[in-house]
Amino acid sequence: MRVVQKFGGSSVADAASIKRVAQRIVDAQAQGNEVVVIVSAMGDTTDELLDLAQQVSPQPRPRELDMLLTAGERMSAALLAMAINDLGYTARSFTGSQAGVITTEKHGDARIIDITPGRIETALGEGDVVIVAGFQGVSQTTKDVTTLGRGASDTTAVALAAALGAGYCEIYSDVDGVFTADPRIVPGAQRIPEISYDEMLELAANGAKILHLRCVEYARRENVEVHVRSSFSTKPGTWVKHISEEESVENPIITGIAHDRSEAKVTVVGVPDRVGAAADVFDTVAAVGVNIDMIVQNVSVADNTTAISFTLPQADGPRAIAALEAARERIGFTSTEYDDHVGKVSVVGVGMRSHPGVSATCFRALAAADINIAMISTSEIRISVVVDVDDVDAAVRACHTAFGLDSEGQAVVYAGTGR
Amino acid sequence: MRVVQKFGGSSVADAASIKRVAQRIVDAQAQGNEVVVIVSAMGDTTDELLDLAQQVSPQPRPRELDMLLTAGERMSAALLAMAINDLGYTARSFTGSQAGVITTEKHGDARIIDITPGRIETALGEGDVVIVAGFQGVSQTTKDVTTLGRGASDTTAVALAAALGAGYCEIYSDVDGVFTADPRIVPGAQRIPEISYDEMLELAANGAKILHLRCVEYARRENVEVHVRSSFSTKPGTWVKHISEEESVENPIITGIAHDRSEAKVTVVGVPDRVGAAADVFDTVAAVGVNIDMIVQNVSVADNTTAISFTLPQADGPRAIAALEAARERIGFTSTEYDDHVGKVSVVGVGMRSHPGVSATCFRALAAADINIAMISTSEIRISVVVDVDDVDAAVRACHTAFGLDSEGQAVVYAGTGR
Repeated sequence: MRVVQKFGGSSVADAASIKRVAQRIVDAQAQGNEVVVIVSAMGDTTDELLDLAQQVSPQPRPRELDMLLTAGERMSAALLAMAINDLGYTARSFTGSQAGVITTEKHGDARIIDITPGRIETALGEGDVVIVAGFQGVSQTTKDVTTLGRGASDTTAVALAAALGAGYCEIYSDVDGVFTADPRIVPGAQRIPEISYDEMLELAANGAKILHLRCVEYARRENVEVHVRSSFSTKPGTWVKHISEEESVENPIITGIAHDRSEAKVTVVGVPDRVGAAADVFDTVAAVGVNIDMIVQNVSVADNTTAISFTLPQADGPRAIAALEAARERIGFTSTEYDDHVGKVSVVGVGMRSHPGVSATCFRALAAADINIAMISTSEIRISVVVDVDDVDAAVRACHTAFGLDSEGQAVVYAGTGR
Repeated sequence: MRVVQKFGGSSVADAASIKRVAQRIVDAQAQGNEVVVIVSAMGDTTDELLDLAQQVSPQPRPRELDMLLTAGERMSAALLAMAINDLGYTARSFTGSQAGVITTEKHGDARIIDITPGRIETALGEGDVVIVAGFQGVSQTTKDVTTLGRGASDTTAVALAAALGAGYCEIYSDVDGVFTADPRIVPGAQRIPEISYDEMLELAANGAKILHLRCVEYARRENVEVHVRSSFSTKPGTWVKHISEEESVENPIITGIAHDRSEAKVTVVGVPDRVGAAADVFDTVAAVGVNIDMIVQNVSVADNTTAISFTLPQADGPRAIAALEAARERIGFTSTEYDDHVGKVSVVGVGMRSHPGVSATCFRALAAADINIAMISTSEIRISVVVDVDDVDAAVRACHTAFGLDSEGQAVVYAGTGR
């Protein structure tokens, strides 16, 4: 079978780690597989290169930054190939460009347009293990070297798995898989043996750091099964895959709880209650390139104004507030409030589609833990709440217990839930 | 004018050095030149990468080693481009492959076959400073990344200067130019303002480390004028160029003194005085891939045998001796002697062609300094002697003084010399 494996920076942090990973790769080859490996830069290499760039230029040109940063994966790929050769197997390393990873020309955040893996196919045909430098490609238009944005080696791996018709794609890191919640917060969190693409997307979009969002989108679109597992053990991890309606009924209603402390909440107070007022607010924010997450509009009060709250990445907060304040008179609102002492907790599970009462269970569990909810938003398979950042851990634990996810516990069943 | 500049590793060792070099480059651009820069890896980067490779594999595959090492120049090229952009100019970095440096496929020691500088021409046409990663290219046959052998960034620079029709090629390092002798040995050594290709070749081939031999050969073949100078000052350095017969008569008879402590001397004793005996000896040594430098065959003595002495790189000594000893009975010689406690001193100057007595001056100067000569070899413009390694410094000084090269001194004129 043809197999794609991806190893993150912590798995190849030093010579000893590289040799350990090499052994794992040749084991897969020895079992009769054709193996293609995508590798990240060693340990902190990317941060060190960024630091060097900063010393030379506070605002390095993105084209040159990509040229610099791609050296990191090039080095780890070459070293990994050497280590495999040293074990008596043959391996060949390729840059993203050589591997045929064709991208848009947006330096620092390019998207994969196409994969033309002719050289990889040739090397596999000659019996070689193929090592590909992750995170990088070549622009279709300019022929310049591009990077796909940080953490995007996962995406390279899935894209190559799709292009090569691989049986599956293994993503190796230093954790054992996807858990029902962050085990540092919930000691009883359990490894999820398998999870649907949709659920993994919701977890990744709402703070779970284990897989890059774009990687999961790619896997869903191309129907690539992804096995998330640890390079430090041989235990099975989490399979991200298509799960049929019939299979999913046997799974728990809720698959996992994600949390995110990176957002802030903006409230625009005293917005005139007229058609187009909300559009004015969000046009203003969009014009400075800020991505909005949750939005809540309060019902009109007596004075015919509304309050509009939304969340956004903390890094974008000052920019959004400045833009809004500059537009205050034109839009006609009273004031803005900014709160970065918030956190978001999200309950995710396809079981919500068929089981009523999930939101009630969630809100009651939070109330029982004396946690105030500042905002709520939902999708078909997710409920997210914004709470005080100091309440995030307690909220995650309360939901984890309420939906019966604790390894040694029982579900706390409230009236009206589907269980 | 179109100008090619090459900066060595010591000139770009850290962020501050890179910024300093960037300023020098934009100064050249501001004077109305089109500037193409070839850059080596920062400081000790190449050694650090080699060390990393050793940790992973004691015998790394050359293809992968090239993939690894080329990251060094890629990083310095990108950083230098950033630093130039930061000064308000536009610069674009290119790998050897992107710059069109087409080579043979011999990893670690590839030769430049062709330069196809289409992307460089485009960038120059758009007003950019072009930065090219030195020391690297791409194999014409395999399309794999190759390196040209250590120190070969100089060759890349000269080859690009020829391909781009540049007015000249500046080679920047941490020394002020080519000197009449190593200033650490001869405090009165002087900078040579200009030197012919032939003389520079002889100096480079006989221990002067300032320019790579292959670079000088390339410059002579393509008639590229090379300016060797320091990146730490704006003083003129040494021009390596074609010097006409008329110009050269005004120059000193002797241009410079080179020395080399890296060789060893092998003597094969008791070689039968028959046709083909010398061929047998050197075939044996050549068969194990050893390059011979000087050869001296003694006149036959009473017992109809000869002694053959030759010099070779010290690193090749054990291999050559082992091969000879294995062939002793077949060839019929008595024994081998090995001496790595030797050094070579070479007196170089085109003036020898027209001035008799140079060798006499040289030998008398050495005799006056009580230095014993073990071997002698000559070319049309060079006299080399092998002496005890402890006599090398004294021999260099004696010759330097004898040929009037000391900055404050006068030539020691012996009867029979041309002066």
